[in-house]
Amino acid sequence: MRKVMLMTLLLCVVCGGRALAQESVSATETAIAAAKDELQTNINVVWTCVAAFLVFFMQAGFAMVETGFTQAKNAVNILMKNLMDFSIGTIAFFLIGFGLMFGATKYGLFGWSDFAIKNVLGDGAHWNYSFLIFQTVFAGTAATIVSGAMAGRTKFRAYLVYSVFICAFIYPIFGSWAWGSLLNGNGWLEKLGFCDFAGSSVVHSIGGWLGLAGAIMLGPRLGKYGPDKKPKAILGHNIPLAALGVFILWFGWFGFNPGSTTVGNGEIGRVAVTTNLAAAAGAIMAMVVSWLKGKKPDASMSLNGALAGLVAITAPCYTITPMGALAIGSIAGALVVLSVLFIDEVLKVDDPVGAVSVHGVCGLWGTLACGLFSAEAVLGTAGENTGLFYGGGFGQLGVQLVGAGACFVWAFGLGLLLFYAIKKTVGLRVTIEEELKGLDIGEHGMEAYSGFQIFSTT
Amino acid sequence: MRKVMLMTLLLCVVCGGRALAQESVSATETAIAAAKDELQTNINVVWTCVAAFLVFFMQAGFAMVETGFTQAKNAVNILMKNLMDFSIGTIAFFLIGFGLMFGATKYGLFGWSDFAIKNVLGDGAHWNYSFLIFQTVFAGTAATIVSGAMAGRTKFRAYLVYSVFICAFIYPIFGSWAWGSLLNGNGWLEKLGFCDFAGSSVVHSIGGWLGLAGAIMLGPRLGKYGPDKKPKAILGHNIPLAALGVFILWFGWFGFNPGSTTVGNGEIGRVAVTTNLAAAAGAIMAMVVSWLKGKKPDASMSLNGALAGLVAITAPCYTITPMGALAIGSIAGALVVLSVLFIDEVLKVDDPVGAVSVHGVCGLWGTLACGLFSAEAVLGTAGENTGLFYGGGFGQLGVQLVGAGACFVWAFGLGLLLFYAIKKTVGLRVTIEEELKGLDIGEHGMEAYSGFQIFSTT
Amino acid sequence: MRKVMLMTLLLCVVCGGRALAQESVSATETAIAAAKDELQTNINVVWTCVAAFLVFFMQAGFAMVETGFTQAKNAVNILMKNLMDFSIGTIAFFLIGFGLMFGATKYGLFGWSDFAIKNVLGDGAHWNYSFLIFQTVFAGTAATIVSGAMAGRTKFRAYLVYSVFICAFIYPIFGSWAWGSLLNGNGWLEKLGFCDFAGSSVVHSIGGWLGLAGAIMLGPRLGKYGPDKKPKAILGHNIPLAALGVFILWFGWFGFNPGSTTVGNGEIGRVAVTTNLAAAAGAIMAMVVSWLKGKKPDASMSLNGALAGLVAITAPCYTITPMGALAIGSIAGALVVLSVLFIDEVLKVDDPVGAVSVHGVCGLWGTLACGLFSAEAVLGTAGENTGLFYGGGFGQLGVQLVGAGACFVWAFGLGLLLFYAIKKTVGLRVTIEEELKGLDIGEHGMEAYSGFQIFSTT
Repeated sequence: MRKVMLMTLLLCVVCGGRALAQESVSATETAIAAAKDELQTNINVVWTCVAAFLVFFMQAGFAMVETGFTQAKNAVNILMKNLMDFSIGTIAFFLIGFGLMFGATKYGLFGWSDFAIKNVLGDGAHWNYSFLIFQTVFAGTAATIVSGAMAGRTKFRAYLVYSVFICAFIYPIFGSWAWGSLLNGNGWLEKLGFCDFAGSSVVHSIGGWLGLAGAIMLGPRLGKYGPDKKPKAILGHNIPLAALGVFILWFGWFGFNPGSTTVGNGEIGRVAVTTNLAAAAGAIMAMVVSWLKGKKPDASMSLNGALAGLVAITAPCYTITPMGALAIGSIAGALVVLSVLFIDEVLKVDDPVGAVSVHGVCGLWGTLACGLFSAEAVLGTAGENTGLFYGGGFGQLGVQLVGAGACFVWAFGLGLLLFYAIKKTVGLRVTIEEELKGLDIGEHGMEAYSGFQIFSTT
Repeated sequence: MRKVMLMTLLLCVVCGGRALAQESVSATETAIAAAKDELQTNINVVWTCVAAFLVFFMQAGFAMVETGFTQAKNAVNILMKNLMDFSIGTIAFFLIGFGLMFGATKYGLFGWSDFAIKNVLGDGAHWNYSFLIFQTVFAGTAATIVSGAMAGRTKFRAYLVYSVFICAFIYPIFGSWAWGSLLNGNGWLEKLGFCDFAGSSVVHSIGGWLGLAGAIMLGPRLGKYGPDKKPKAILGHNIPLAALGVFILWFGWFGFNPGSTTVGNGEIGRVAVTTNLAAAAGAIMAMVVSWLKGKKPDASMSLNGALAGLVAITAPCYTITPMGALAIGSIAGALVVLSVLFIDEVLKVDDPVGAVSVHGVCGLWGTLACGLFSAEAVLGTAGENTGLFYGGGFGQLGVQLVGAGACFVWAFGLGLLLFYAIKKTVGLRVTIEEELKGLDIGEHGMEAYSGFQIFSTT
Repeated sequence: MRKVMLMTLLLCVVCGGRALAQESVSATETAIAAAKDELQTNINVVWTCVAAFLVFFMQAGFAMVETGFTQAKNAVNILMKNLMDFSIGTIAFFLIGFGLMFGATKYGLFGWSDFAIKNVLGDGAHWNYSFLIFQTVFAGTAATIVSGAMAGRTKFRAYLVYSVFICAFIYPIFGSWAWGSLLNGNGWLEKLGFCDFAGSSVVHSIGGWLGLAGAIMLGPRLGKYGPDKKPKAILGHNIPLAALGVFILWFGWFGFNPGSTTVGNGEIGRVAVTTNLAAAAGAIMAMVVSWLKGKKPDASMSLNGALAGLVAITAPCYTITPMGALAIGSIAGALVVLSVLFIDEVLKVDDPVGAVSVHGVCGLWGTLACGLFSAEAVLGTAGENTGLFYGGGFGQLGVQLVGAGACFVWAFGLGLLLFYAIKKTVGLRVTIEEELKGLDIGEHGMEAYSGFQIFSTT
C-alpha cells in the first residue's frame, strides 16, 4: 500500500516536473515568437518606408523625363504640374483615396473606412502609417504619368482639377478592386485571382489610359501634324535631364517593385534581380528595334525602352524567373517603339513623351505577362496561377485579360468624361498665342532658362 | 520517521525541479532580451545610416536649388561653396564640433569630450559611428543653407573661413543646448523641456539667421535695388535644376525627420506621413498665396513653399497629428511668400534664393508650432508638453519662445560678429568688376556652360 | 533494499528533471539562435539591397559627371553609352560574369558554377539574389568608368562590344582572384591575403586601366594637342550637371563601401565615417593643390578630388582609423591633380574627364594604402595584416603591390588587346567629320539641347 502511494507520489513528481518543463518550453516559444514578431515588424517598417522614399523620388524622375523630352518654353509649366499633382494628390489620397482603396467593403467595389487615419497609438497604428506613406507615393506615381501625355498645351487650372479626381477617386477605386485586401478591403478582381504584384495595371496603365484620354480630348500641339497629316518631331530640349530622369526612375523602381513585398526578407533581392534584368533588356531591345527602323540607335527610344521594361515587369516581378524577366523586358522594349510609332503615325494622337506607350501599353503587356510567364518553380505550388508558357493553361491569362480590360474601360472611360467636363467648365487647352509663346510665360509669368539664347522650335 | 524523510525528500525534488525550471525561464528571458537587443540595435544602425545618407543627399538638393535660382555667371562658384562647406564642415565637426555638441557638460553650455572619436571596438563604439555620420550630415545641412543667402557677391576665401566656424563652433554649441543629451551632454534648453525633434531651430533657423547676418553685412547684389530703392527681380537661370533640387530635398527630408528617431520602428512611418503632408500643404498654399498676390501661380514660390512646409514640420513632426501637420505646412506655405516679399521690399535685404524666409522664418514658425499643436493623443500622456491648441496652455509655447529666441540671438549675433571680422580681415565681398563679370570667371577662372550663348541679365 | 530502490528512484527523478530542464534550455538556445539567425539574415538582405540600389544610382552620377565635363555636341552619345554599358553589363554579368567570379574554382583562376542562378526556393536561394544584385551594380560601375576616358571620339558600336567583354570576362575574372570566396570561389590573390575591401582595385583600377588602354588606342580628340604638342583645354559644357554627378556618386558610395560589409550591423556607421572623411579631405586637398598650381581654386579638380578620396578609401575603408582616412583622402586629392596634369602634359594621353587619374591611379593608391594604414586597433588583432605605418612591416604592403600590379597587367594588357581587336574589326574611332560635328548627330541623329544656341568649342 505504502509502495503504491510512494509510486504515485513519485509519478506525480515526475509528471509535475515534465509539465513544468513543458510549460516553460511553451512559454519560451511564445516569448521567442513575440520577440521575433516585433523585430520582424520593425524590419518590415524600415524596408517599406525606405522603399516608399525611393518611390517618392520617382517624382523627380518623372519631372526630369517630362521636362527634358519637351520644349524649353514649357519647362516651368511641366515642373509645376509635377509638383502640384503630387502635393494635391498627397492630400486627396490621405483624406479620401486611402479609405476608398483600403477600407472595408461589402461588394468589393470600393472601401469605406480608414479615411484620414487618426489613431496614433495602439495595435497596428504604426504599421498603418508606414503603409499609408507607401500607398501615397504609389498614388502620386499614377497621377504624375498623365502630365507627360498632356504636355505643352494644357491649362494649369485644368490640371489641378484633374489631380484631385485621380488621387481621390479614379486611382483608389480601381486600386480597391485589385489590392484592397492588403488592409481591410477585398476587391472583386482579387477575388478572381487577378495578379498585379506592384501595379502594371493599378498604377501604370491607369495613368497611361488617363493620359490617352487627355491627349485625345486636347488634340495635338500646334505644328505636330502638318497639312499633309504627317507627324513632325517636336524635339525635347534637354536630353541629359531626360536621361537623368530615367536613371532616377530606374533607381526608384527598386523601391516600387521589391518594396511591394512590404516585408523585409530575401524576396527583396529576388524581385530586384527580375526588375533590373527586365529594365536592361527593355533598353537594349528598344535600341535594337529603333536602330533597325530608323538606321541609328535612338536615345529617346532606348531611354523609354528601359522604362517600358520596368513598367512591364511591375506586375509579374514576383512570380516569374529571371529568364522570364529577360523575355518580358525584351518584348516591352520592342513594343514601346512600335507603340510610339503607331500612336504617333496611325492614331495621330500627340503624346509628347510617349507616356501612353510606356505606361498604358507596356502596363497592359506586363499584366498579361503574369498569365504567360508565372512559373510553378517560383510560386512554390502548381496550380491555377501558373502562366500559359509554364503549363498553367489559359486560366490565369483569362483573369489577367479581365483585369486589364477593366482597367482600360475604367481609366479611359472616366478620363474622357473627366476631361470633357473640365473642357466644358474650367477649359482644357490654352490659347494659340499662349501655346506659341510657351506656357511658362503664359501660365506662370517666367522663363525656365533666363539669360540663355533659345530658338523657337515650333 | 522514514515517512517524514521521504516526504521531505520528495518536497526537495519538487521544489528543486520548480527552481530549476524557473532558473531556466529566467535565463531564457535574459537570452531572448539580449538577442532582441542586439538585433534591434542592428536595425537601428541600418535605419540611422540610411537616413544619414538621405540627409547627405540633401547637399545635392541645396546645390541645385541655389544654382538654379541664381545667375548662370555665378553657378560654378555656388557649386564650389556647396562642395566646400560640406567638406570643410565634415572635418571641423569631426575634430571639434561633435565633442562640443554631444560631449559631457557641467552647466549645459557646451560639451567637452568625444572629440574625434577614436575607439573602434568595445561597447557602444559602433553605435557612436552611426550617430556621428548622422550628426555630421546635419551639421553640413546647417552650413550649406547660408551660401544661398550670400550668393552672387561673396568672396570664396571668406566663405571657406565661415565654413570652419559654423561647423566647429556656432552650430554645435547651440546644438548642445537642445540635443546634447542624445549622447553624453545635457543642454540647458533641453532641461527646460524645449522641443525641436529634428531641428527646425537647431539646423534650419541657425542656418537662416546666419544667412540673414551675412546678407546684411554684404549688402545687395548690384542692380538688385534701383535708384528708386525698389527691388528688381534677378531671375534664376535654370528652373529645372531648382525643381530637381527641391525634389531631392523633399526626398532627403525623409531621412531628416523620420531618421531623427534613430530607432527602426513604426514611428518612422508616422513621421514620414506628417512630414509629407506638411510639404504638400506648403507647396499648395504658397502657390495659392502667390497666385492671389501676383495673378499667376509662381513656380519659385511654390517650390519654396514645399521647402517651407518641410522646415516648419521638422521640429513638431513627432508630436503632432496628421491634421496638425496639414495646418503647420499650410501656414508655412503662406508665411514664406509673405516673408520673401517683406525681406525683399521692406527690409531691403537681398537674399537671392529666399533662404532666410525658408529656413530662418519657417524654422521659427515650426519651433513655435510645437507649443501650439503638440497633441496629447500623440504624446501618449497629458502634461506640460501639450500644445496650446490641444489644451496644454502656454507652458510649452513659452519654452519654445525661449529656445527660438536664443537661436536668433546666438546665430544672428555671432553671424554679424563673424562676418564683420571676416570683412575686416579676409574681405567679404568681391570687386564690382568681378561681380558684373560673374564670380565663376573671377573666383575660379571658368564658366559653368562653356559653348552656350548666355546674355548678361544684370 | 527498499531504501536503496527508493533513493535510486528519487535520484532518477531528480536527474530526469535536471535533464529535462537542460534539454529544454538547449532547445531554447537553439530556438533563439535560429530566430536570431533568420532575423539577422533579413536585416542583412534589407541592408545589402538598399546598398545595391545606392550603387546602382551611381550610374546616374557617372552619366552626369561625364556629360557635364565633356562637350554639348557629344552629350547624347555619352548618355547612351552609360545607359548601354549598364544594360548590356547586367545581362552579360548575369549569364556569364557572376559564375566566373563567384563560382567554384580549383586553382583560384576563375569560377565555374552558378551561371544565371536559377534556384528560387530552398536554402540560401534568397541571399543569392541579394548578393547577385549587389554584385551586378558593382560590375556596372567598373564598366561605366571607361566611357569617360574614351569620350568624344569612340564609335558607338565599338563601345557596345567592349561592354560585353568587360562584364562577362575582364572584370569578373580579376574579381574572382580577390573576392571569389564571398560565395563559392577562392581566388589566388585572396589566398595571399590581398586586401581590397570594397574594390579600389577590383572595380576602380580595373575600369581606370581599361580606360587608359582605350584612350591610348584611340588617340586624343581633334584639337586637344596643338601643333606645338601642348595640351589645350576642351571645356566641359555643364558644370552644374557634373557637380550633381559628383554628389550622386558620393551618395552612392555610402552603398558601395559600407554596403560591402553585406551585414547589417554597426560596422556600417564606421565605414560610412571613414568614407565620408576621405571624400571631404580629397576635395579640400585637390582644391588647395589646384589653387597653388593654377592660382585659382579649380572646380573640376575639386570635384574630382572628392571622387579621388572616395576611390582611394574604397579598399582600406574597413581596416583603417578615421585619422587614417583623412590621410588617405588628402593624399588622393593631391595625387589626382598631379596625375591629371601628368597624363595630360607628359604622357599626352587625352582622358576627357580624368577617369584614369581618379579611378586608375587613386585606385592603385588606395590599394597600397591598405598595406600602409591598416591598424591593429581596427583589425582587432595584431598580425600580418597590419600596415607599415602601424607597425606591421612590409608584408601586407608587398601583397598589395602584387595585387595592384596584377590588376594593372590584367586590365591594361587585356584592354590593349581588346581595343586593338575592335579597331581592326568594328572600328574604334569615328570619322573626322563626325567628330567635328559631334557624335550626337553622327551616331544618334539628334541633339542634346534642341533650341539652344551653342557655339562650337573645338
